[in-house]
Amino acid sequence: MSEIYIGIDLGGTNIKIGCFDEKLNLLCKTSVTTEAQMEPKVVVERINAGTRNLLADNNILMESVKAAGIGVPGPSNVENGMIIAAPNLPLFKNVPIRDMLSEKFDKPVVFENDANVACWGEHAVGAGKGIDNMVFFTLGTGIGGGIISEGKLLHGFNNNATELGHLIVRPGGRVCGCGQKGCAEAHASASSTAARAQEAIEAGAESSLKKVLEANKQITCKDVFEHAKAGDKFATETVEETAKCLAILCIDLLHTTGPERIVFAGGMIAAGEQLLGRIKHYYEEYLWTLKAEKTEICFATLGEDAGIIGAAALALHETGNK
Amino acid sequence: MSEIYIGIDLGGTNIKIGCFDEKLNLLCKTSVTTEAQMEPKVVVERINAGTRNLLADNNILMESVKAAGIGVPGPSNVENGMIIAAPNLPLFKNVPIRDMLSEKFDKPVVFENDANVACWGEHAVGAGKGIDNMVFFTLGTGIGGGIISEGKLLHGFNNNATELGHLIVRPGGRVCGCGQKGCAEAHASASSTAARAQEAIEAGAESSLKKVLEANKQITCKDVFEHAKAGDKFATETVEETAKCLAILCIDLLHTTGPERIVFAGGMIAAGEQLLGRIKHYYEEYLWTLKAEKTEICFATLGEDAGIIGAAALALHETGNK
Repeated sequence: MSEIYIGIDLGGTNIKIGCFDEKLNLLCKTSVTTEAQMEPKVVVERINAGTRNLLADNNILMESVKAAGIGVPGPSNVENGMIIAAPNLPLFKNVPIRDMLSEKFDKPVVFENDANVACWGEHAVGAGKGIDNMVFFTLGTGIGGGIISEGKLLHGFNNNATELGHLIVRPGGRVCGCGQKGCAEAHASASSTAARAQEAIEAGAESSLKKVLEANKQITCKDVFEHAKAGDKFATETVEETAKCLAILCIDLLHTTGPERIVFAGGMIAAGEQLLGRIKHYYEEYLWTLKAEKTEICFATLGEDAGIIGAAALALHETGNK
Repeated sequence: MSEIYIGIDLGGTNIKIGCFDEKLNLLCKTSVTTEAQMEPKVVVERINAGTRNLLADNNILMESVKAAGIGVPGPSNVENGMIIAAPNLPLFKNVPIRDMLSEKFDKPVVFENDANVACWGEHAVGAGKGIDNMVFFTLGTGIGGGIISEGKLLHGFNNNATELGHLIVRPGGRVCGCGQKGCAEAHASASSTAARAQEAIEAGAESSLKKVLEANKQITCKDVFEHAKAGDKFATETVEETAKCLAILCIDLLHTTGPERIVFAGGMIAAGEQLLGRIKHYYEEYLWTLKAEKTEICFATLGEDAGIIGAAALALHETGNK
């Protein structure tokens, strides 16, 4: 009988659970909701019950489960599998969720932060398959990331590595939520791209986005890309600035860890070639001419299941036979 | 009898050879000169003869040598131990120097680029001793570097990693020798620091350095630091800009590989606290406030023997019993 791996993606408002075979094929999935005031042990019991129901509903025996993986948002301690704090779950303070789950399941549980989990998923079965040196960025409200170096996730001292949204691409630039100025996240994340547009229009910039702001009281990143596509000059410049910042980020990472492939994920990649083409354009324009580079830049392929796939892939990697 | 390790530092105009015990104590050293038009096999024979003479003069038997390490400047292929091209040695094109030396010595030879060798030396017995996650910069004519991640030198795809002088710290800034604009190397290396000062003075900047330029037809990095120390405002601003660029570089590396310690080496560190204090000052000023960081910034301690120590340390690491 096939060995089964469970992938768990702890989000802010719900928890996705997926069940995979040892080739990482998704067999079945479910999700359970969380509420802000839930105690950690209640949430852990929900994950346990959700997983056992999922298995039962699909005629999979708990005995065939080899291990589980869980990806968590926010500050965490990978070494001891602890959530230090969780967005939208205020009662989660220093919760040893890895060991709590492992006890409930009576199985090994592997723990990682969500960006590393998604990075590992792309490496295992997505856009980074077969790529032992890769860099991974998620473009959403913030910019997160992960690095795979010689086939391993890079963690750094005290698990401090790969805060990739906080490399400085515009010195002295916009103030980031982290307190630095000019972070990639403060200029080129989905929410920063929208914020740059909105602030400029509020300050009087001419754009077809003005009507969107008047109607909706806010501008989204999607609005900016749509209006750029429709030919609005200001929206186009806003997108170009995002692409320029991401190109600098790619060059900085190229010269640091020397990836074979750079993979972008997250909500903003819905913009497709309109974004990817411009990142590549500025990457080529800014990149050194000292020697030819073969690093590829591409988009992630796993979509919204990346979290559960990556968590199961990590569980397989850490505990499986291969 | 103690096991002996040979460290070889291939420079532009001479080759240093050191002989170490398995605690990496330097037992004896020598150097042999090279001339521009020397054939690779002649240079290899000089290294061989120099090493054998050094051992004989110090009553050390070749049989007690366990292995040798060699550090090389310029483009190289670490996987097959090949010098692709060597500064000041125009006849060196695709020279398999690792295997040539190994045959002459009849011993294993370990091969690395010179920045990685110096990085490893500091990690083994210098400012990075005991530090398994470190970043290393050399500040000289250019800016080179190395990264140790979980106790291993980081190489990347095709040995493409750690071109640390080419992270972009001043987007759209000075044109670097590599073809990019705004590289750390183009703003904050010793020669770029001097060049910035000289160009500004030639363009009319007021400074006590003006007389140096008139007398010597050029300004050196050392001149800039000396005049800053003596209170010259322009020279002080020039040093501050160097420190600002290096602080951004430190922050970018902190958020990428998460080092416990960042070590600066190279000619410019002769400036001492006048440089180190200002790098730390801007690092603290620019760094995020999201959480406290414990990363230390310090200077290298091995000095001019770093190349031979690092090469011997790598040989020990790759071939020794520990």
